[in-house]
Amino acid sequence: MNTFTQRLDGYRQRVEQQLDRLICADHSLEPRLQLTMRHGLLNGGKRLRPALVYLSHRLCSDAPANDLTDRAAVAIECIHSYSLVHDDLPAMDNDDLRRGLPTCHIAFDEASAILAGDALQCLAFEHLSAPGDNVPAALQLRMLNLLAQASGMYGMVLGQAFDLSHVDKPLTLEQLQAMHAHKTGALISAAVELGALSAGVTDADKLEPLRHYSRLIGLAFQIQDDLLDIEGNTETLGKPQGSDLTQNKPTYPALLGLEGARTRLHQLHDEAVEILRTFGPTADDLIALTDYIVHRDH
Amino acid sequence: MNTFTQRLDGYRQRVEQQLDRLICADHSLEPRLQLTMRHGLLNGGKRLRPALVYLSHRLCSDAPANDLTDRAAVAIECIHSYSLVHDDLPAMDNDDLRRGLPTCHIAFDEASAILAGDALQCLAFEHLSAPGDNVPAALQLRMLNLLAQASGMYGMVLGQAFDLSHVDKPLTLEQLQAMHAHKTGALISAAVELGALSAGVTDADKLEPLRHYSRLIGLAFQIQDDLLDIEGNTETLGKPQGSDLTQNKPTYPALLGLEGARTRLHQLHDEAVEILRTFGPTADDLIALTDYIVHRDH
Repeated sequence: MNTFTQRLDGYRQRVEQQLDRLICADHSLEPRLQLTMRHGLLNGGKRLRPALVYLSHRLCSDAPANDLTDRAAVAIECIHSYSLVHDDLPAMDNDDLRRGLPTCHIAFDEASAILAGDALQCLAFEHLSAPGDNVPAALQLRMLNLLAQASGMYGMVLGQAFDLSHVDKPLTLEQLQAMHAHKTGALISAAVELGALSAGVTDADKLEPLRHYSRLIGLAFQIQDDLLDIEGNTETLGKPQGSDLTQNKPTYPALLGLEGARTRLHQLHDEAVEILRTFGPTADDLIALTDYIVHRDH
Repeated sequence: MNTFTQRLDGYRQRVEQQLDRLICADHSLEPRLQLTMRHGLLNGGKRLRPALVYLSHRLCSDAPANDLTDRAAVAIECIHSYSLVHDDLPAMDNDDLRRGLPTCHIAFDEASAILAGDALQCLAFEHLSAPGDNVPAALQLRMLNLLAQASGMYGMVLGQAFDLSHVDKPLTLEQLQAMHAHKTGALISAAVELGALSAGVTDADKLEPLRHYSRLIGLAFQIQDDLLDIEGNTETLGKPQGSDLTQNKPTYPALLGLEGARTRLHQLHDEAVEILRTFGPTADDLIALTDYIVHRDH
């Protein structure tokens, strides 16, 4: 592993240790709930969103990641995980496998999966609102409100609802972008902004370039996801290659063509990196992550 | 209507006006999500939990209810409503009717109901964390953390999980109490404490009698619910009378006998009122609500 992938792995371990400590099934009145939550949360995820939180903090500050950075990384992964647990449900995407493992409602049951998802969402807000040492309450509150806005009826959930109601219906490029901007983009943008906020960067003019950056990589992330579904390897992906096509889901390659989608992906990448370069050498790791998002194979 | 029921109706209208303004379907990318949320939220609920927030504030302060009192009342009703939307799902209690109306997954569809519940939970935390004028951030954060603790894996969701995993299994009185203390009690206790916190009462020794009071009425509320299922009127209840019995759910009357349950209900009521009397005349309305909880017919 090179230095960057080692650092990425370090962030992954750092957030997973916290997630592991947070949910204990041993002394619960109902251990099955906690076990289902752990299954949905500790399942080999890439932890890209926590990495974005840590690297955005690093971009904005010379100081090491602090308590609020950690909390934001944990909270955003709880939100992301709950959304996957619910998305996989029979009434939603009806997926039996995620990252090569049975989904929560298969490993446990549907009611447990619904409740575990509910509890994971709640845990995100509980953890981010818990009292800490030397934590400015106003900043903590602002971060919480940002995460809630990104997750809810005008953010992630809206994108998911739009997606479900347009299965088997043709989408324009504009509609496809609006869907992904909500469904995956909102949380990716929140991750970047939360990292900056935890570093004490709160002015709109300083946050704006980061917001722009985050919208570009949110879109790039989704295009690469679509390309992997066509070009990727079932084993590496942990889900059947080609599943978007067989489910007749609208994708960027379907609208732009394979070459068109690849070209757009690289345009987005280059524009995103250009923004980061204005921050100087502290941006190096976030640039490396941006490269990784575009070149990843799963 | 007497003065108290007029005041109760006033609180109901006050919270419903806020809920109504909060969710607008007109300009949404996906109006169906917001319509499902409105169906789950604005459906003729009694708004007992918001009333507890307002009356607990009134108990603790001569000043009128403030911005934080309103936000807490709205947030707790969003949490309560999301839990009902998810509880009614086919994989959970599989209920087609609530308060005489089709449940969300019947009026819309299962996926919409899951997503609307998710969005309602998120809305609670978004609304309670939104910036306000003259609101102390530390207090707001504490209220948010309290609500999250009461709602999640050691509160309401835990109670629901325990309930589901014990359908058709005998429960001891102790287990039944523990289940209800989580499933309904945690949110009722949170309502009382949130009202007090919004009035600036933050010391543990001042909050402790209110916590004790809230545990008593949480239990009383559930016993009256069980009694209404046996003695109530299907039309007034908005659900089939006797449905607990036919679903073989554990209840207080089943464990204590009808007379035993009634006696316990009145003991709890009297003990709760005794605590409130120590607060003097500002407790009158909360005492009236306590009477109402025990004597209500739906």
